[in-house]
Amino acid sequence: MRHTKVKDLLNSTTTLQEVNAKGWVRTFRNNQFIALNDGSTINNIQCVVDFENTPEETLKRITTGAAVSVIGTLVESKGAGQKYEIQVNKLEILGDSDAEKFPMQPKKHSLEFLRENAHLRVRTNAFGAIMRVRSVLSYAVHSYFQQKGFVYVNTPIITGADAEGAGEMFQVTSLPLDNLPKNEEGNIDFKKDFFGKHTNLTVSGQLEGETFAMALGQIYTFGPTFRAENSNTSRHLAEFWMIEPEVAFNDLDDNMDLAEDFIQYVIKYALDNCQDDLKFLEGRLLEEEKSKPQAERSEMALLEKLNFVLENNFKRVSYTEAIDILRDSTPNKKKKFQYLINEWGADLQSEHERFLVEKHFKCPVILYDYPANIKAFYMRLNDNTEPGRETVRAMDILFPGIGEIVGGSEREERYDVLVEKMEKLGIDKEELYWYLDTRRFGSATHAGFGLGFERLVLFVTGMTNIRDVIPFPRTPGSAEF
Amino acid sequence: MRHTKVKDLLNSTTTLQEVNAKGWVRTFRNNQFIALNDGSTINNIQCVVDFENTPEETLKRITTGAAVSVIGTLVESKGAGQKYEIQVNKLEILGDSDAEKFPMQPKKHSLEFLRENAHLRVRTNAFGAIMRVRSVLSYAVHSYFQQKGFVYVNTPIITGADAEGAGEMFQVTSLPLDNLPKNEEGNIDFKKDFFGKHTNLTVSGQLEGETFAMALGQIYTFGPTFRAENSNTSRHLAEFWMIEPEVAFNDLDDNMDLAEDFIQYVIKYALDNCQDDLKFLEGRLLEEEKSKPQAERSEMALLEKLNFVLENNFKRVSYTEAIDILRDSTPNKKKKFQYLINEWGADLQSEHERFLVEKHFKCPVILYDYPANIKAFYMRLNDNTEPGRETVRAMDILFPGIGEIVGGSEREERYDVLVEKMEKLGIDKEELYWYLDTRRFGSATHAGFGLGFERLVLFVTGMTNIRDVIPFPRTPGSAEF
Repeated sequence: MRHTKVKDLLNSTTTLQEVNAKGWVRTFRNNQFIALNDGSTINNIQCVVDFENTPEETLKRITTGAAVSVIGTLVESKGAGQKYEIQVNKLEILGDSDAEKFPMQPKKHSLEFLRENAHLRVRTNAFGAIMRVRSVLSYAVHSYFQQKGFVYVNTPIITGADAEGAGEMFQVTSLPLDNLPKNEEGNIDFKKDFFGKHTNLTVSGQLEGETFAMALGQIYTFGPTFRAENSNTSRHLAEFWMIEPEVAFNDLDDNMDLAEDFIQYVIKYALDNCQDDLKFLEGRLLEEEKSKPQAERSEMALLEKLNFVLENNFKRVSYTEAIDILRDSTPNKKKKFQYLINEWGADLQSEHERFLVEKHFKCPVILYDYPANIKAFYMRLNDNTEPGRETVRAMDILFPGIGEIVGGSEREERYDVLVEKMEKLGIDKEELYWYLDTRRFGSATHAGFGLGFERLVLFVTGMTNIRDVIPFPRTPGSAEF
Repeated sequence: MRHTKVKDLLNSTTTLQEVNAKGWVRTFRNNQFIALNDGSTINNIQCVVDFENTPEETLKRITTGAAVSVIGTLVESKGAGQKYEIQVNKLEILGDSDAEKFPMQPKKHSLEFLRENAHLRVRTNAFGAIMRVRSVLSYAVHSYFQQKGFVYVNTPIITGADAEGAGEMFQVTSLPLDNLPKNEEGNIDFKKDFFGKHTNLTVSGQLEGETFAMALGQIYTFGPTFRAENSNTSRHLAEFWMIEPEVAFNDLDDNMDLAEDFIQYVIKYALDNCQDDLKFLEGRLLEEEKSKPQAERSEMALLEKLNFVLENNFKRVSYTEAIDILRDSTPNKKKKFQYLINEWGADLQSEHERFLVEKHFKCPVILYDYPANIKAFYMRLNDNTEPGRETVRAMDILFPGIGEIVGGSEREERYDVLVEKMEKLGIDKEELYWYLDTRRFGSATHAGFGLGFERLVLFVTGMTNIRDVIPFPRTPGSAEF
């Protein structure tokens, strides 16, 4: 007979039929009660073994982690906390799990230990939940954009362009590293490399995405991006997934509206589709925070926090207003900030962003209209600014506990202004001729943003280290599995 | 006023209201009729300019490729081939397009020329259609698996494992290539590299995917994969997107059922959601094939071919049966095959696959149970085979005009058998300890496959060169944009 998923068994509308369940033993109590999980849900189904008629040697093999198949009758459970259970008629051990050796025993493991066992941690309740929520959030991303008629674009991962300057890049080569070919000048001869030139891993698909937005109108990317930066923090990965929508004819206000609506949609989608997993993760977070002093605990429980984001508009604050708030703030006056805010033009540090979001506004904040000289070359210069106070139509969205989750801008659509900026910053116009072509032929106002997917997953799951929300994290010194 | 997408204007249910459309001029006829496209659909909306009351200098700027905004009245069109048109009251040129310089003039361009202009080719009807179909197919992939409760898993792109042997790999490094650090033995000191070891770009997420399937039950990947192979053909890319589902408790038959159901679902989804684009692409293919001799033309038009795949089961043929068919075939007897089929055990070449699919069966074919020694180490050895005729539970799905579109297998779930195979092939057990852990702890039958996404897009769009179905193709000697 075909087996039925545990999720479907637990949602069954009839009982007393014979069913087959397959999965892994989470616990085995009293030589009688198997808690069986197959990954389809965080919930286990209880399988009641007729231990008096089961050989002792079989019972011994029902250990945590073992794969088993049970055939039996689905009945209403007399036990607490579960609607149904299986009265087992036939039990087969599919694959053993030596209790002395299996690392994922049913006890509390540290997150560090679990990271070292990233191939097995997904067998725990917490990581099963995180990975299901991550998957549902991915689908919400696609659903949102596809319903609105956006075209999904796979921008290249290996790129010959390294002019953008969004961050340090990883090099890609198929040359023999221990015997690199040299040209006549004695330099490495990249003409002999696979692509006939020096190539890197992409740091962003934005520039290529813009070329598609200027033809298809509304596009989005959702793919891996890379930063070879030695940032050993709980918020950085060397390999992470990024979502980058880009929309022709959108200005900065449209861009803020899109980002806010998008984030609220995907969070609502997770709330609607991951109830059991999110409830479990809420409990996990409460448990974790018990060991922290009251002041460091979250003000809201996880589900309350997610609902708060849905029900409240993001606060929109210009950079100039933010500087005024920060300059007059208590931590600035009391010199508690590491970087004191004295004047307009200062780049905002993580401590300032946290103050604004977590102490001052206590909600997600969109900062916009940043000084031109602290932002990227492709951002739209604001009209009518004072000399020395030029700003660009940039925006960052800051989330409590996460910091920057979105960075975006209206793009500089004017060919001459863009070229002048590139020249000033020493960006190679010839290498980016194709990007400039979007401004040479049929240019128009357009805007877009990038959202770091793992930071969104962090926020929704209530986890605090970004390494815990991606299957196999890549960080300085670590590319295991 | 807010502008409305061309697609929505053409699907409007009321007329005579004032509307705003923004897009790019495809053509401008008789100083009066703009064919305006904004990428939301392959169809243009006709905008009728009041040329008598429009300044001559504005009319001159209405050139192919220019971005314009028109405000006017949506009315039923008197012209053929369109339901509605806009009687323009106000026209604004957003971005000019110099007719002497814009490469995408409204005439026939070669596919080679368009490839060199991959940042602009998406502004043509054909590439707009291809990229929209590609996007819809992507969404169909996610929809299929998510509806069935599969968990989307992002397996790592940068990998420290290079043991799998699925193909040549690209190296990833942040070491300075012109000054590589050496260790005491005089070798390159990869401990100083970003990840502290030698790393590559992934050729497949399967092995990592299996670790997740053995916890979550049903998973799929959909991400970029890489091959550093010097294959300059119309079917190979150095960077391509692959879909890899993996299912615990599935055997090879389940795997074939899943693959067939999945492919039929996504093709049906494209037929249901991309009618206009597919009709255009069908016409394009007919036009292209006019220059070919009759014998080389497709037997079916594009939509007919797609419907054929929906309505007919894939033919399932064992390798052994296939060898019998091939040995007795006319091209084998007449020695027309480059590689003659003389005996069981021969690896099948593209010419043999094409004969089976295109001449013999004339439908998609699933070949299964291949000789063990021409397939990968992780495939399940069949029970009860004759000595010297060992086979594995592998399958390949072959499509007319495309060749192999899917490769998959039931996996070897028996620890001892797997280890023996790895030792025989010299595959490092210590490096793959995490993969072996899936067989050490709670092992079970499981199966999966890989589908090359671009080959699917090729099939659905009727294009013949894989470089034309991905935004920015990466091939030997080419990593432009």
